[in-house]
Amino acid sequence: MTHTSGTEVVLHDATLRDGQHEVGHQMTEDQLRRYAEAADRAGVPVVEVGHGNGLGASSLQIGRARLSDAQMLDAVRPELASARMGVFMAPGWGTGSDIRAAVAAGAGVVRVAAHCTEANVTRRHLGLVRDLGVQAQTVLLMSHMAEPTELARQCALAVSYGAQAVGIMDSAGALLPGDVTARVSAIASETGVPVIFHGHNNLGLAVGNSLAAVQAGARIVDVCAQGIGAGAGNTPLEVMAAVLQRCGYETGVQVRAALAAAEVAREHLMDRAPQMDPVSIVSGLEGVFSGFRLPVLAAAEKAGVDPLEVFAELGRRRAVAGQEDLIPVAVDAVAQTAALAEPVNP
Amino acid sequence: MTHTSGTEVVLHDATLRDGQHEVGHQMTEDQLRRYAEAADRAGVPVVEVGHGNGLGASSLQIGRARLSDAQMLDAVRPELASARMGVFMAPGWGTGSDIRAAVAAGAGVVRVAAHCTEANVTRRHLGLVRDLGVQAQTVLLMSHMAEPTELARQCALAVSYGAQAVGIMDSAGALLPGDVTARVSAIASETGVPVIFHGHNNLGLAVGNSLAAVQAGARIVDVCAQGIGAGAGNTPLEVMAAVLQRCGYETGVQVRAALAAAEVAREHLMDRAPQMDPVSIVSGLEGVFSGFRLPVLAAAEKAGVDPLEVFAELGRRRAVAGQEDLIPVAVDAVAQTAALAEPVNP
Repeated sequence: MTHTSGTEVVLHDATLRDGQHEVGHQMTEDQLRRYAEAADRAGVPVVEVGHGNGLGASSLQIGRARLSDAQMLDAVRPELASARMGVFMAPGWGTGSDIRAAVAAGAGVVRVAAHCTEANVTRRHLGLVRDLGVQAQTVLLMSHMAEPTELARQCALAVSYGAQAVGIMDSAGALLPGDVTARVSAIASETGVPVIFHGHNNLGLAVGNSLAAVQAGARIVDVCAQGIGAGAGNTPLEVMAAVLQRCGYETGVQVRAALAAAEVAREHLMDRAPQMDPVSIVSGLEGVFSGFRLPVLAAAEKAGVDPLEVFAELGRRRAVAGQEDLIPVAVDAVAQTAALAEPVNP
Repeated sequence: MTHTSGTEVVLHDATLRDGQHEVGHQMTEDQLRRYAEAADRAGVPVVEVGHGNGLGASSLQIGRARLSDAQMLDAVRPELASARMGVFMAPGWGTGSDIRAAVAAGAGVVRVAAHCTEANVTRRHLGLVRDLGVQAQTVLLMSHMAEPTELARQCALAVSYGAQAVGIMDSAGALLPGDVTARVSAIASETGVPVIFHGHNNLGLAVGNSLAAVQAGARIVDVCAQGIGAGAGNTPLEVMAAVLQRCGYETGVQVRAALAAAEVAREHLMDRAPQMDPVSIVSGLEGVFSGFRLPVLAAAEKAGVDPLEVFAELGRRRAVAGQEDLIPVAVDAVAQTAALAEPVNP
């Protein structure tokens, strides 16, 4: 058996943010409250909440959330006796005012996200977060699209802007454990701050990759109850708590209480458990953003084309998170190819 | 990205054998035929079929299969144009006559299983399989309960008896990737034959562990469509095919055709997708045989006790596959503890 000393690992619970992707950003105040209370009771140190794409992202193109950012934060804050409340923001969707409002509403951890090669866009917002006196983090999206040294360089930039924790999101669920080890090791050795890893299960590797990340030096691991999240879902809180306990890491999360929180999620947040279905597997294989799952399925059905082909086309176009406008373009390309392949009646 | 040369890896499809655990061994001839045909079309090289516990295991205690071994083999054989038919047997449940009958019915790969420290029980049967001229394999069950050197010694014993491939099953879904690497490496360096790995997903690590096994030298990986199998299920065929393709291994399985076979399994074999529910997570954490899931749930419900406590008790008693008789003992122990904990009315 693999064991390690009592190294501390933070399980950053993104259920009420990444899990929104699975329900079209439609969580109610009652759902948010019930889960936040269960997660807090399980000893989870951070509960992230918001639109699936973060502060300010609710829109017609990306998907309107049922609640405003303020409503979500106000619902969750009173339920957290010991956990800190976290928010996620990507410059472009979110703004400085969104961050100010979130911190005023009680957010204690603010994540500023950027495409994996564009940490420079986080500078101003990280400075603001530090000025506001709460924890500033940076995560790089679509991290399979950049090499370890490049990611380490980008993370070092974020640290120079004030990020107190930096790391990567496997937004397409495309990384393999060896890829994760190389990336996290490079970031850990280049920066002196805790390294974050956020996995997706599109290729069945969310837990394996998260464990590889921790063993390579990551100290903050994103989890969602039952794995609820974009694509085939995230790293399940209750499973990761058990695996880290087995390895001797300290998370402060009780496995039985995490199982109870997962049960609350199953009963109140989800229509179905996240699954590695053909769309998510091809999404992982082609390296396409997991959050495109529902919009691609809808657009492909409407146009009568194979969603797997749309994912393959988006992979060829190297579509990244935020480029939802490429979905109709890819659908058209697939439809045209299909039309060309059909026999012509004389 | 991790890449490797065109090393060949055999995806050994156990859907119609290990998947039987998920449906109480009740698959019909029509179900067997449909899936066997789809797997063969996907390029799967071996299709294993039978009762979940193998040849001769259908019984009141372990669970009666709907069909006899002969009926199952006769249903599958005609559907396999290129795949070989495999059978599993554990001495004690299966006998030499069962092996003779299976080979006469067309089985080309015969697995003889043993508890991880008892390879000696496979001697006679391996000799028989070799005499019959088909491929002889040995798998060691509950392999988290023995150290790498011990497993390597046991595998070398099996090779000395005639096994042409040897390896381990993570019957409790309790191994971590590092544990797998150590075990498979030790076996590969001690024996000169292909090494087998069979994972379970109780801790979300079926794919991660299977990849670790291949990277440590395993050349036969057990898979089931959609992961259908005991506990939280096995390594999903369609996911493992995609992951190995990404790494550059040659499996002969087409990912799109594997996705189609998985769809056949979803539609025709399963009531629900395998899940990491509390029972399977605790089963993995405590190192208890995945096949105990349904019988433990049934016994715990009947006695009105917490099934998670029953798994913990079975873990303390170090119950191994085949010791179904320990389940009522563990249930009684849990019931007595619960009774003692109740307040006494004066």
